[in-house]
Amino acid sequence: MVKLTPTPAYSLTLRLETSLDPTELGTVLQIIGGQQGQVGSIRLLEKTANRILRELVVVAASQEHGQAIVNAVKSDGQATVLEVSDRTFRLHEGGKITIKSKHPLQEYDDLAMAYTPGVGRVSQAIADDPDLVHKLTIKSHTVAIVSDGSAVLGLGNIGPEAALPVMEGKAMLFQEFAGLDAFPICLATQEVDEIVATVKRIAPVFGGINLEDISAPRCFDIEARLQAELDIPVFHDDQHGTAIVTLAALKNALQFVGKSLETVRIVINGAGAAGIAVARLLRKAGAKDLILCNRRGILSLQTDLTPAQKEFAVTQTGTLADALGDADVFIGLSAPGVLTVEMVQRMAKEAIVFAMANPVPEIQPELIYNHVAVVATGRSDYPNQINNVLAFPGVFKGTLACRAPRMTEEMFLAAAEAIAGLVSPSERHSAYIVPSVFDPRVAPAVAKAVEDCARSLGLARA
Amino acid sequence: MVKLTPTPAYSLTLRLETSLDPTELGTVLQIIGGQQGQVGSIRLLEKTANRILRELVVVAASQEHGQAIVNAVKSDGQATVLEVSDRTFRLHEGGKITIKSKHPLQEYDDLAMAYTPGVGRVSQAIADDPDLVHKLTIKSHTVAIVSDGSAVLGLGNIGPEAALPVMEGKAMLFQEFAGLDAFPICLATQEVDEIVATVKRIAPVFGGINLEDISAPRCFDIEARLQAELDIPVFHDDQHGTAIVTLAALKNALQFVGKSLETVRIVINGAGAAGIAVARLLRKAGAKDLILCNRRGILSLQTDLTPAQKEFAVTQTGTLADALGDADVFIGLSAPGVLTVEMVQRMAKEAIVFAMANPVPEIQPELIYNHVAVVATGRSDYPNQINNVLAFPGVFKGTLACRAPRMTEEMFLAAAEAIAGLVSPSERHSAYIVPSVFDPRVAPAVAKAVEDCARSLGLARA
Repeated sequence: MVKLTPTPAYSLTLRLETSLDPTELGTVLQIIGGQQGQVGSIRLLEKTANRILRELVVVAASQEHGQAIVNAVKSDGQATVLEVSDRTFRLHEGGKITIKSKHPLQEYDDLAMAYTPGVGRVSQAIADDPDLVHKLTIKSHTVAIVSDGSAVLGLGNIGPEAALPVMEGKAMLFQEFAGLDAFPICLATQEVDEIVATVKRIAPVFGGINLEDISAPRCFDIEARLQAELDIPVFHDDQHGTAIVTLAALKNALQFVGKSLETVRIVINGAGAAGIAVARLLRKAGAKDLILCNRRGILSLQTDLTPAQKEFAVTQTGTLADALGDADVFIGLSAPGVLTVEMVQRMAKEAIVFAMANPVPEIQPELIYNHVAVVATGRSDYPNQINNVLAFPGVFKGTLACRAPRMTEEMFLAAAEAIAGLVSPSERHSAYIVPSVFDPRVAPAVAKAVEDCARSLGLARA
Repeated sequence: MVKLTPTPAYSLTLRLETSLDPTELGTVLQIIGGQQGQVGSIRLLEKTANRILRELVVVAASQEHGQAIVNAVKSDGQATVLEVSDRTFRLHEGGKITIKSKHPLQEYDDLAMAYTPGVGRVSQAIADDPDLVHKLTIKSHTVAIVSDGSAVLGLGNIGPEAALPVMEGKAMLFQEFAGLDAFPICLATQEVDEIVATVKRIAPVFGGINLEDISAPRCFDIEARLQAELDIPVFHDDQHGTAIVTLAALKNALQFVGKSLETVRIVINGAGAAGIAVARLLRKAGAKDLILCNRRGILSLQTDLTPAQKEFAVTQTGTLADALGDADVFIGLSAPGVLTVEMVQRMAKEAIVFAMANPVPEIQPELIYNHVAVVATGRSDYPNQINNVLAFPGVFKGTLACRAPRMTEEMFLAAAEAIAGLVSPSERHSAYIVPSVFDPRVAPAVAKAVEDCARSLGLARA
């Protein structure tokens, strides 16, 4: 088992009562520290004549780890643990998004304009000129986040209800990073035909469709069919978001080591939706030497492959370790711990390793810092976080701004270029190949690049 | 053509420039008044050495009337009209609702808890215990407002895009009056099977389904099938909302005139979704003497009727005027101006007239104040506004509070009772038979009555 780092995903709030003895809090913190728990903020809630009540945030590495920390504090017995709450679960209670009115409804005039009878005039105007729906409704800036719950995070096929917390989180990201309104649509079907039909029927309200956590190879078909039959953009973030950000990071990493995309040997581990999409976009960007691997090793012409995988089948056969001989780049979109130090040592000099399995990467970065030139992961607690949120808010914002009916690979290349370009040559180094997800320049830069590209392609309708 | 009263639905904002002559504004107001325009607020925007810039709100009775007012001000020439904007259209620009995060996403810890990796734990918890979806997502307080655009307001079959402004307005009402989150789902199909299938597939995200502006008789079938196949409440507001508020108003009106629901003769004009639903709920509440009419007159056993209409067919034949002979109550859910003073004069003493066609009622109330005891309309600018917003926010709030899987007629009767009960016997008079839509007691009282009823029926699941 790989070693786990404490993460806010496993953070607890402890309500603690101590006596007035000024050393007691220190003792509690020592106990927590002794268990490798990280103490965050400490709030004093109440102080009486003989007791002090405090709230401590403690970050653990797992649920079991959190429990061990609490048990240790309890068994010491000096402080009394009054309540333990899981901060992550508390944050999700009641859901994470809300639908608000933009205008107050306080008197009859408000109702008469926003609702009947005034709204009838607005509806009639749209009936007379359908194009007005973009001006007079939420459509122009509203995205459906569509999932069937078949491939949620690393959890697999957990169904639509269990997928909902993720889709709500995605809606938060759309609003926070791009000012777009997004609503989760979690479907109680996993039939391709039914998904396509359902999304087409609910499309009138939306300016764009963001497909999310739908398993391969169904996701390719669903995306292609929806895009063919709808006149609004359809984007599968697991494919294109991942591909855009990976390409952006790889551009800067290659610049850093002085190699060229056209000549490097790239090994991609994981041949699901993300792996295939990354391979496609890298090839579109100029990469020529690509090897895809899955659990059974190199995707070779002899293997039983899906049509999408066949695009990348090679004559070479063998294991991931075989594939990595002299490879310049490893891109992992697979599973925790599948990459070993020995495999990395077989790679070419100045190698680049993107270990993007989430939350636990293909290899712990600290094990290979001495063996390669650049390491990136999907995690926020290591340098070089390759996170889709760098891409999708701006990609949608730019596409919706000009009402392009679809997104193209050219637009994805432009987005990758924009993200990479925010790291200037002088700033670029082994631990800074992509901007921070909180860099406020990212979404506007991506949006502009995507919109400009759409206009140059003649796709703009506004 | 019936006479129209100015309504905020037709209000304009005029930007006006006048000289410093203090009489000029008065002249402009006289011109507007001379055109029967109503001046609302006047804001001074800017005053320079020789000009004054103001913004005037002017309420008109129709688009043509608004234009006539503007033309009159322009042709006078003293004031310069710099800009005319339609306040209703301006309010609808960009849509009227927005989807917000409940928690800020400002640092990595926020993302780690709201999104990956933390959200994975929440999703896994729901996968392990599906009931947790009610606690850890938006489901418990989120309503889908579903329309196919086939019977929108008085506009008819204008399609899903043109229906969207109405559904957004409805979402505003859910939030403002009951604190519920509601999202518009406008469907690009009018096939009953497809509507049912689509709503079932998107249901995982929602705690309830509010059907809206779907034409009869399809709406009956759609509602019944969805309710049979879903374990969340399905409510068709055009039917049940209208029926609940009509019953509430009728209870108080009958109390006022000292008549009893069991013995009065009631004529309902309009045999669409609302007319049928009102008839059904009145019967459930004890009404025995009901006559339904449509465009061709009394629904009689000889006529070609839908199954729903057949429930109310009578042996009597004839016109609406025939039906109204000695009737105690007229309930209009039909079309502007179809009721005449002569017909009203045929009614019994102390008659009650609910002329609810919207925005223009079956008869202008001022024509019959001397002939009947109580008049009500759907309009906010006459007394006794019978408006669904008195019912649906509380009905959903109460049903969702106890997670009842469906709404029953008993719950609708309880809701009507709660609304009627907010007008105390001492307050009740001919111009006050229902509380104001802005009365803050309404939604909580309805919610409580509905929840109590659901619990007493054994429908509560939380």
